[in-house]
Amino acid sequence: MITAADPAAAWRTLAAIRQRAPLVHNITNLVVTNNTANALLAVGASPAMVEGTDEVGEFVRVAAALVVNLGTMSAERAAAMRLAVRAAVDAGTPWVLDPVAVGAIGYRTQVAHELIGHHPAAIRGNPSEILSLAGEAGGGKGVDTRAGAEAALDAARHLAERTGAVVATTGATDYVTDGRRTVTVTNGHPMMTRVTGLGCTATAIVGACLAVEQDALAATSHALAILGVAGELAAERARGPGSLQLEILDALHGLDQATLVARARLAVLADMSG
Amino acid sequence: MITAADPAAAWRTLAAIRQRAPLVHNITNLVVTNNTANALLAVGASPAMVEGTDEVGEFVRVAAALVVNLGTMSAERAAAMRLAVRAAVDAGTPWVLDPVAVGAIGYRTQVAHELIGHHPAAIRGNPSEILSLAGEAGGGKGVDTRAGAEAALDAARHLAERTGAVVATTGATDYVTDGRRTVTVTNGHPMMTRVTGLGCTATAIVGACLAVEQDALAATSHALAILGVAGELAAERARGPGSLQLEILDALHGLDQATLVARARLAVLADMSG
Amino acid sequence: MITAADPAAAWRTLAAIRQRAPLVHNITNLVVTNNTANALLAVGASPAMVEGTDEVGEFVRVAAALVVNLGTMSAERAAAMRLAVRAAVDAGTPWVLDPVAVGAIGYRTQVAHELIGHHPAAIRGNPSEILSLAGEAGGGKGVDTRAGAEAALDAARHLAERTGAVVATTGATDYVTDGRRTVTVTNGHPMMTRVTGLGCTATAIVGACLAVEQDALAATSHALAILGVAGELAAERARGPGSLQLEILDALHGLDQATLVARARLAVLADMSG
Repeated sequence: MITAADPAAAWRTLAAIRQRAPLVHNITNLVVTNNTANALLAVGASPAMVEGTDEVGEFVRVAAALVVNLGTMSAERAAAMRLAVRAAVDAGTPWVLDPVAVGAIGYRTQVAHELIGHHPAAIRGNPSEILSLAGEAGGGKGVDTRAGAEAALDAARHLAERTGAVVATTGATDYVTDGRRTVTVTNGHPMMTRVTGLGCTATAIVGACLAVEQDALAATSHALAILGVAGELAAERARGPGSLQLEILDALHGLDQATLVARARLAVLADMSG
Repeated sequence: MITAADPAAAWRTLAAIRQRAPLVHNITNLVVTNNTANALLAVGASPAMVEGTDEVGEFVRVAAALVVNLGTMSAERAAAMRLAVRAAVDAGTPWVLDPVAVGAIGYRTQVAHELIGHHPAAIRGNPSEILSLAGEAGGGKGVDTRAGAEAALDAARHLAERTGAVVATTGATDYVTDGRRTVTVTNGHPMMTRVTGLGCTATAIVGACLAVEQDALAATSHALAILGVAGELAAERARGPGSLQLEILDALHGLDQATLVARARLAVLADMSG
Repeated sequence: MITAADPAAAWRTLAAIRQRAPLVHNITNLVVTNNTANALLAVGASPAMVEGTDEVGEFVRVAAALVVNLGTMSAERAAAMRLAVRAAVDAGTPWVLDPVAVGAIGYRTQVAHELIGHHPAAIRGNPSEILSLAGEAGGGKGVDTRAGAEAALDAARHLAERTGAVVATTGATDYVTDGRRTVTVTNGHPMMTRVTGLGCTATAIVGACLAVEQDALAATSHALAILGVAGELAAERARGPGSLQLEILDALHGLDQATLVARARLAVLADMSG
């Protein structure tokens, strides 16, 4: 079994985060700052959210990973992202991109295409975002963007090959690919779609995993399994999306080895790519 | 019974939101982004919070309603609001204004007076905000802004006549008027005033209702009844304002026809206006 | 017993907040706006978060206290802070500084040093932040910034003497000093470090206490005892950091005289300074 699809390895990744408390720097959107910081604290990481252009480069240089999320763009935030990505690349720090709503809006689509030229370790999006990013790069132009994650898998593989990033397309089944190998993650709960920003949270946890696990396919797959299992545990206790949000934080904080290993549903997808 | 005061019609409005999941675009304040998005998800709408001036016009054109909230103003956010309102008017998309703290601060009072010239479908505020907006337009100058919603009703009627908007003045009793007819909503719970941003949430839910119900008097009245009933249900379970905030999200998500119809306290105010 | 170390006086401070509902103005960071507003509401204060440079001076002039938090800086937010601090000083309104991450980043270190020249009533930070602020002013240069609050106490005393502010260095034990007298607060719970922004919340509650209690040593000590006791009560009910966050709001809201007086652990530190 490859590391990326090994539940025991997912536990080792989570345990390493808790032990090292890596500094995960975020330039994210105005809606999810609080949840994202709390989710990173709940898995054991140390979040930072500095985004001023006077500060961000200096802060990224001491971080163990960088998360860039396009949810609420402005010219100033875009400038901060450029500075942060450059600082991360200079320092050899892994960074992950969340291309929120790329494809739907011209400006951020352009920023996203510029950023993916700077060696992200991982990209996490929904099918239409991944199709848009890949399509603009020549892959799946005209593909139905309402399609599911499976339909977006070819686009994801192309995008991974072009950028060198691991690409995660998330939905009921998550597909994580480096262009050659693909891991599926089938954890999570439908009510998670009724809480704002859980996709952003997933990306932030990918950042935390990248800080402690150099294999980006493994880091990304483990992150999605960790959040998915926490979501399942939370849904067992929640009465609606309000309580689900806090139960997920409690579940991330309390997640133990036996539960994660027993419930993580990771698998290598049979090769259909070649 | 007119639609606006009909509990069964309020249920049909909520059911339509859940069925169509309308995209509700928000330019709101830094304090409530997360709650607002979660409340819109909890009623079944699809929230968007894009506010960059490079993006907002493009995004508003695909939205089913626009919510503009003046809670934390800046020159850039004011520019985004102008672009968004213009895009909404061009597209025939209904928009709702929340004039937070208008009257208390000169700058936003000026922005608010500019924006209400662009045909909002609805305006929701507390009595002092509505008195200020109406007063500046010639209605109630010098009126005691600490007065209750009832005392602000004449000002609300004037404001509705001048702007063509439905005006909701909220408090222990909410008054919703189109200048001619007035509906009262007497749902809610006093502890709701100890959770930040529930007025903003009310305005956002007005936006969701406007997306599916063309009669703005009905959309606004139904929104206030839906949130008020959810607040009552939540207060039965909450031990304080922290748990109330999440219980309201759970209650909005789980609200069923029998409960809403039984508990919505909507009434047409006997005509005292002419 | 001095007022600052008197649990009964801490209760009187909380009761005065509840009775007067002072307007506490905040210029804070993007991560904690919602929690901060809710915590201020939960203790009985009226929060405001206006930060636009066109508005902030006007609003601060009607506030009873000002909270300035450097968590997410930008050039515009720094300009708003300067305007706000000037307005507060002009109006004789007490203000409190939270120097988040000062020392770690050059830009905000410079802003912090500029601001502390404008007579803050109080400064609250963790040991490394206080050491940095004091050290740059000539006190503890080269001191290990990973040291605990006790090790930072000399630096805190120097900082208090130089600025005239009460300085609180918080950790497992909080040290509150005016340079001459020092009060310790030993309330709180370790899980509070896993919720983002509870330090920011502490600073905001210091602001609320300053609005009703002129003795800044007392206001600051009482604030830390009130939040610490609420944290302990919340931890008894919480299952993790997600539920802890809301339980703290419920506990702040429900905190009664008997509980606060019985649990507040305030003490005057035996004089080791002179």
